[in-house]
Amino acid sequence: MLERFPILRISERDRTEIQDTVVREFPLTIILNNQELVTLLCSPTNLNYLAIGCLFSEGLLKSKDEVKKIMVDEQGGVVRVETQGDKGLAGEPLFKPLIASGGGKGAFYSAADVPSQAKVESQIKVSPYDVFSLVEEFVQRSEVFKATGGVHCAALSDTKGILAFSEDIGRHNAIDKIFGECILKDIATDDRIIITSGRISSEILLKVAKRNIPILISKSAPTDLGVRLADDLGITLIGFARGKRMNVYTHGWRVVPG
Amino acid sequence: MLERFPILRISERDRTEIQDTVVREFPLTIILNNQELVTLLCSPTNLNYLAIGCLFSEGLLKSKDEVKKIMVDEQGGVVRVETQGDKGLAGEPLFKPLIASGGGKGAFYSAADVPSQAKVESQIKVSPYDVFSLVEEFVQRSEVFKATGGVHCAALSDTKGILAFSEDIGRHNAIDKIFGECILKDIATDDRIIITSGRISSEILLKVAKRNIPILISKSAPTDLGVRLADDLGITLIGFARGKRMNVYTHGWRVVPG
Repeated sequence: MLERFPILRISERDRTEIQDTVVREFPLTIILNNQELVTLLCSPTNLNYLAIGCLFSEGLLKSKDEVKKIMVDEQGGVVRVETQGDKGLAGEPLFKPLIASGGGKGAFYSAADVPSQAKVESQIKVSPYDVFSLVEEFVQRSEVFKATGGVHCAALSDTKGILAFSEDIGRHNAIDKIFGECILKDIATDDRIIITSGRISSEILLKVAKRNIPILISKSAPTDLGVRLADDLGITLIGFARGKRMNVYTHGWRVVPG
Repeated sequence: MLERFPILRISERDRTEIQDTVVREFPLTIILNNQELVTLLCSPTNLNYLAIGCLFSEGLLKSKDEVKKIMVDEQGGVVRVETQGDKGLAGEPLFKPLIASGGGKGAFYSAADVPSQAKVESQIKVSPYDVFSLVEEFVQRSEVFKATGGVHCAALSDTKGILAFSEDIGRHNAIDKIFGECILKDIATDDRIIITSGRISSEILLKVAKRNIPILISKSAPTDLGVRLADDLGITLIGFARGKRMNVYTHGWRVVPG
């Protein structure tokens, strides 16, 4: 479930290269009776339980007796389930286009997006003090919404301050609200920074790369796919930005003493 | 963005009825050039920004100039966007079946699930001390995964202890892993309890109701739709279960002094 990466840990006094642990994000395709059903982004443990639980939750499986065979291909990221009587996909499309608050523009996401996505080439730099003070401003703006728990915040900033701020129960939605505002109000996003309260998964990375944004700061953790994509796409990925600390996962050359 | 509900706040010494604030979970349908594109579960603010940002993130919009008209129907939960040249849906299905880690079996979800879902009728009771000790056991089991941040945990328990435990980057996946394990190992779920680290949204509620589970405990917050569904479906919903405190949102008759 975990992967180790070399990262740069920055505090008020130190700048240390350490090995850090990052949680894995694993694409798992579930195939029911030879028909590809869905690809989940998950943690790679108990894949058989996940496949059976998912089929059950979606009403495609009623009991254990219906299961003829479960074949888990961990390497390939595939679970094949065979059931009695070829249940399932009688013409009807299984996937109604509803996207949960928890995230998941997943439905649009495709591995094909990745190679076609241009690298972010910005030469912008930021100092640790810029990051500390941006995060402080971000946290202050978030106060109102903290009371109720489950809300994510996102912001667009330059190195000196926040330019747009949004909140939503979904971390993807909060960032899309920022981008929508930028488009409608002609706010440039090049050479700028996205700050988010939420976890950095592969999809968040792709979303930010599409707006050509070179620096992504999160109060939370990234996934391993998030880190790999940030590296490939030329994005400076900063996680666990809290108080006067941060982890820089990729492209640390943009974070300079200031 | 917020809604008020009467809840029962229980601590070691007190059991108080108070008004509490819960975050709203709002279904928003985006229609592009008269074609229904997607329904997001979101917070009902800046719906125009969200629609435009979402279209942009998914490559269906390149610049502001393409936008001819945005019509927001807050009451109906619909944003209609008209663009130059009827961009978009040329035969290709827009939604590839990939579900993000953040949650979102959304693709399967349908409002039609709700009325058809049977009420949970279980007469099981639980004491506050049972809940405190279950949450303590749950937190201990979660310790290993806390180090990396972004992981959710879920467990099945009876009133005395944890029977199955799982972890995943997605809160939906963690619960589906539990259900898969229960099915494959013939572990009964009736009269039992689900504990989760994640937010309680409408989809989590429906998932738990399908397994006929009467009590749902979360360390996090519920949404307003989550609370309404729990009420309708006869499920005791406990949120913010931390240390020796909890909020009981619905069907508090199952939480008895013991």
